[in-house]
Amino acid sequence: MASNGFGQTFRFTTWGESHGPAIGCVVDGCPPGIALAQDDLQVWLDRRRPGQSRFTTQRREPDRVNILSGVFEGRTTGTPISLAIDNVDQRSRDYSKIADRFRPGHADYTYWKKYGHRDYRGGGRSSARETAMRVAAGGVARKVLGSSVSIRGALVQMGEKTVDRARWDWDAVGDNPFFCPDTAVVGDWADYLDSIRKAGSSVGAVIEIVAEGAPSGLGEPIYGKLDSDLAAALMSINAVKGVEIGDGFAAAAKRGEDAHDEMVPDAEGGITFLSNNTGGVLGGISTGQAVVARFAVKPTSSILVPRRGVNEAGEAVEIVTTGRHDPCVGIRAVPVGEAMMALVLADHLLRHRAQNG
Amino acid sequence: MASNGFGQTFRFTTWGESHGPAIGCVVDGCPPGIALAQDDLQVWLDRRRPGQSRFTTQRREPDRVNILSGVFEGRTTGTPISLAIDNVDQRSRDYSKIADRFRPGHADYTYWKKYGHRDYRGGGRSSARETAMRVAAGGVARKVLGSSVSIRGALVQMGEKTVDRARWDWDAVGDNPFFCPDTAVVGDWADYLDSIRKAGSSVGAVIEIVAEGAPSGLGEPIYGKLDSDLAAALMSINAVKGVEIGDGFAAAAKRGEDAHDEMVPDAEGGITFLSNNTGGVLGGISTGQAVVARFAVKPTSSILVPRRGVNEAGEAVEIVTTGRHDPCVGIRAVPVGEAMMALVLADHLLRHRAQNG
Amino acid sequence: MASNGFGQTFRFTTWGESHGPAIGCVVDGCPPGIALAQDDLQVWLDRRRPGQSRFTTQRREPDRVNILSGVFEGRTTGTPISLAIDNVDQRSRDYSKIADRFRPGHADYTYWKKYGHRDYRGGGRSSARETAMRVAAGGVARKVLGSSVSIRGALVQMGEKTVDRARWDWDAVGDNPFFCPDTAVVGDWADYLDSIRKAGSSVGAVIEIVAEGAPSGLGEPIYGKLDSDLAAALMSINAVKGVEIGDGFAAAAKRGEDAHDEMVPDAEGGITFLSNNTGGVLGGISTGQAVVARFAVKPTSSILVPRRGVNEAGEAVEIVTTGRHDPCVGIRAVPVGEAMMALVLADHLLRHRAQNG
Amino acid sequence: MASNGFGQTFRFTTWGESHGPAIGCVVDGCPPGIALAQDDLQVWLDRRRPGQSRFTTQRREPDRVNILSGVFEGRTTGTPISLAIDNVDQRSRDYSKIADRFRPGHADYTYWKKYGHRDYRGGGRSSARETAMRVAAGGVARKVLGSSVSIRGALVQMGEKTVDRARWDWDAVGDNPFFCPDTAVVGDWADYLDSIRKAGSSVGAVIEIVAEGAPSGLGEPIYGKLDSDLAAALMSINAVKGVEIGDGFAAAAKRGEDAHDEMVPDAEGGITFLSNNTGGVLGGISTGQAVVARFAVKPTSSILVPRRGVNEAGEAVEIVTTGRHDPCVGIRAVPVGEAMMALVLADHLLRHRAQNG
Repeated sequence: MASNGFGQTFRFTTWGESHGPAIGCVVDGCPPGIALAQDDLQVWLDRRRPGQSRFTTQRREPDRVNILSGVFEGRTTGTPISLAIDNVDQRSRDYSKIADRFRPGHADYTYWKKYGHRDYRGGGRSSARETAMRVAAGGVARKVLGSSVSIRGALVQMGEKTVDRARWDWDAVGDNPFFCPDTAVVGDWADYLDSIRKAGSSVGAVIEIVAEGAPSGLGEPIYGKLDSDLAAALMSINAVKGVEIGDGFAAAAKRGEDAHDEMVPDAEGGITFLSNNTGGVLGGISTGQAVVARFAVKPTSSILVPRRGVNEAGEAVEIVTTGRHDPCVGIRAVPVGEAMMALVLADHLLRHRAQNG
Repeated sequence: MASNGFGQTFRFTTWGESHGPAIGCVVDGCPPGIALAQDDLQVWLDRRRPGQSRFTTQRREPDRVNILSGVFEGRTTGTPISLAIDNVDQRSRDYSKIADRFRPGHADYTYWKKYGHRDYRGGGRSSARETAMRVAAGGVARKVLGSSVSIRGALVQMGEKTVDRARWDWDAVGDNPFFCPDTAVVGDWADYLDSIRKAGSSVGAVIEIVAEGAPSGLGEPIYGKLDSDLAAALMSINAVKGVEIGDGFAAAAKRGEDAHDEMVPDAEGGITFLSNNTGGVLGGISTGQAVVARFAVKPTSSILVPRRGVNEAGEAVEIVTTGRHDPCVGIRAVPVGEAMMALVLADHLLRHRAQNG
Repeated sequence: MASNGFGQTFRFTTWGESHGPAIGCVVDGCPPGIALAQDDLQVWLDRRRPGQSRFTTQRREPDRVNILSGVFEGRTTGTPISLAIDNVDQRSRDYSKIADRFRPGHADYTYWKKYGHRDYRGGGRSSARETAMRVAAGGVARKVLGSSVSIRGALVQMGEKTVDRARWDWDAVGDNPFFCPDTAVVGDWADYLDSIRKAGSSVGAVIEIVAEGAPSGLGEPIYGKLDSDLAAALMSINAVKGVEIGDGFAAAAKRGEDAHDEMVPDAEGGITFLSNNTGGVLGGISTGQAVVARFAVKPTSSILVPRRGVNEAGEAVEIVTTGRHDPCVGIRAVPVGEAMMALVLADHLLRHRAQNG
Repeated sequence: MASNGFGQTFRFTTWGESHGPAIGCVVDGCPPGIALAQDDLQVWLDRRRPGQSRFTTQRREPDRVNILSGVFEGRTTGTPISLAIDNVDQRSRDYSKIADRFRPGHADYTYWKKYGHRDYRGGGRSSARETAMRVAAGGVARKVLGSSVSIRGALVQMGEKTVDRARWDWDAVGDNPFFCPDTAVVGDWADYLDSIRKAGSSVGAVIEIVAEGAPSGLGEPIYGKLDSDLAAALMSINAVKGVEIGDGFAAAAKRGEDAHDEMVPDAEGGITFLSNNTGGVLGGISTGQAVVARFAVKPTSSILVPRRGVNEAGEAVEIVTTGRHDPCVGIRAVPVGEAMMALVLADHLLRHRAQNG
């Protein structure tokens, strides 16, 4: 059934395949009167754009987004905002060799099992190209949230390599090809990924997304909890295998007195938390602290290393994928994760307003 | 807005507070003609029932479920199935001391911020008592899935203690108070949790859920992916802070040739996977292998160890929670996780049928 | 799939059969802090209650509604409100004669075709008894709308008999067994319905619902228009075959200059409409004028007049329905129609707030 | 909140304004493997296309639909189908005169009240131009339903003029500019509408839609009834003020023995209904007979006859609308009504399959 949309009050629906004429989305439920121009979205798309370093796919896509509806005289009208990006650099012939083959770890097999009929070119609908529209829609969501909410992401692990959180520098994130917040490790990461790329292999990653400035009260128990919706949003990104909020899996090893954030009164009659183990969410509702989520991305399945696979005829085949691919798709997942955080928060801002005025 | 229901085609909506007269749910969209009796649900509720060992809360609830509609002459009619359980052992006076206080790590604070007005008795709506209805609804979901689908869960980590997966024994799970699949560690776990309980503290846990026998093809890209819905389902359980599918976060450290499951033809013209790193889901669609999910539960926030908190008047207070609580809520989360897996799979079985016949 | 709920932000889900132990509903998304007691709902249920005159079914149901959750210390908490009514006067044996037969004009046949398995007692789920829960939920909706919104209904046609709108008197509606706004026709209507009742027959009706005081701006183009949702809401009531807004079908015969409501400035800088042909809705959004809807109810299909039917075995049978039935179900549809109007408006009040603040 | 989509399993979401660069829609949930080409949709769009006679607006739009995704090698893939039509003949300057004015009977006023900010050119989002995408999506729905289901519509009333149902001829419907099924009245209708057009006025209409060949069992009690969804679907069409199923409002005047359709066994062990007063729906579920719906369209509000209105400054103004408009929008509503019938039936075909296999 229909499952290509996300969100309740602020909802976006994406369409398009990797090698079709275009990809796009419809953003429905956006409040009216918000200043919105193409550049407001392009800035985020440019961060995700392929081909900006040797560490991402060499597909050359300008990813120029067009606003086709919902904006009049520079402001949103409250009607659906249609966004589209032309696909300009398809090389479908790259895929003819694997047209009837199932790559290990790829959705080839399951799409074929589910639908019988599939667009094999560039992964068709299962391609991470779809995530460009999440980033575009996320740009609209950021405008809904306003400038008081800051959403930033960083790569905290690439393969076996991790960052030293003591050296975390948000300003450094934009200055290296990895969205890495720890300048000291960038050189090592570059060498590491070069070696993996040259070996025709790929590697996984962990991304951390931090939203600051979101008000308390967002999230709807029991089945619309903020963290539950975040988990769905992040897990829906291609190749994601795990999601954490705050302490995440580390919370399992903790004792009650270490896991929970004590509170003290602040000077303005409010509350100050003495830590943020909970990642800004309690009982599925935002506390007002930073909302912190992490997600794990597995290595790209399209690699040059030969693997055993099967074709549609049920025959054993050797799979080598020669197209253009990211040696670490986790890198470009950073702006996608930010976008999903923005989309979930914008939706919940409106949902909260519906019930609680 | 309305957020107390889960599922699209097979949908359940829960209601009720910890200390209200009853809790219940409505299961909507169940196929007709399925044999269903009270005992089919009670068997699962009995596994989750409190007070069965010294390691769970001493609240004495028989948790007897009643079927109030949707079943006629022993079979479902396709109309909504209403299920309810009376609350019989509330001790609301236990909570008068914390009525105006916010426990660190508890939803007290966020419910108050969001709604202004809250039922503080036993956590009200935020109590894990709600999960009894998930287990009841999950019992219906299991009947929809049929006997060819097996869904089992186990505790694989309790605080700092883990199991040895080489000793995994599903048959052992029901024979110890921890749903632990490794008999060799049970004695140690008992001593460990006793010490935590006596210290008035609590500890977290990791639960693993395995569904075997589910067909390939379940799950709907892009925003109704099987793993995305599982992540939402499991993250919605009280105190959950992380969710993994298959390799989960471990996938981040892997190389492409190690992370993906090779395939070979099998004797019946089908496919055999040589491993299951992916946890039974590729591109958001089930592969036909076992669906494997894990989730992390933080320690109970209601503990005897004094903690710094704040009350509704904004004053600093010391918080000591003296009610009856689970030293490790993760234990009773095992049947809840199984239920959520069953509910997600049943929903997707019907969703798949809608689109793909 | 799941279809027993209505509404997006303010949503209710009903359950229960005519001859089961109880009927109920869950109201989800209600704003917190609203004073709500059993009597606030009972007053509306008492208007719909059967057996209050010789013109409605003689089934004796006190229809006492219980609030099982979502209200604490007299006020809503923002969590789901569970409402239930016990069934106390089932006479299931009345139905044994028609257990395997399909009454002409009744849902017997289609439920059997759709589900295979059905509760034939009193019509099971297809019984108008379900509408009691709409009235209860509608009572909650009225509290959400507040005292500035007035929702009233009246019977404007019963069989061949109509009212004279020039004599319309809202105060008279509660003083006769027909909810008739025209006192002058009540005696004639009583004689007419007596003759129909004594003949073992039944008759249809038209009900008009008027909501005054709803603000302008409610309703969401294109597929959540206020009139579109009202049409769905009213058409979902048992036996309804038509719905109109404002001029309704009469608009088809009009010219443009006669059909549309001219506007002039009012003294407060606002707008006064010179007529209300549109029934308070333009482009799917409320104008601020009275929202006016009408719906047509067909005659009860359960009658004593013998009719040709078929049984489950496919044999021709004569159908005579001897149970207790309303000679004009349209009468008791008046409070049901009011409730649906309240439910739609409350939902749209919150939906509007979500998007437009 | 998001309200520009319709349908549950088979869902379409539309976007675009009258004078934007394009209009479009996303069809989500379509089964895979269905042969689909541009011409399959164009044939229906051509029936709705403006400027084909002097009785419709003279705006010249080729309404050429493009399929941008979801179809590969001529067959649907089960992924979202994106459809778009370029707007080529906007004359936005026509609207500068009424940019700040509210036309009586038009959505100008309510969009302004709801959103504050609106695209006034050609009615913006409230323009009936949006219905082109319903027709395109309806073309996909017809393919889902298959050739055994026939959906046809006709104009049965235009202003004061009605058809003689005894002369009903489906074959005649395509041979006159009114979609009129009664050839004998066409000349009179032409003269009548000419006189209205020349007077700068407009007139309403009633459209009847008949779906034959739909199986029994479609429709989901209680709030997803087939007739309830049809009522919402048809009422959502621009200018619609009333919806009927089968006998519709005429049922109110009938007695039970006249209103209901008797049944007799047929030769194949099935059932033959002796009439179709119910319009093919009982208890919200299709009977297998023809599904019959009618809807009333009010006259176009954009007319040359001067009317009293108000502008955004709150001043009294005289409104004369000089743009290009349909003297009877009901005519072009015929293919739109057919499309909505197809969309509702396709959705329910899949919904039924989800629950009932």
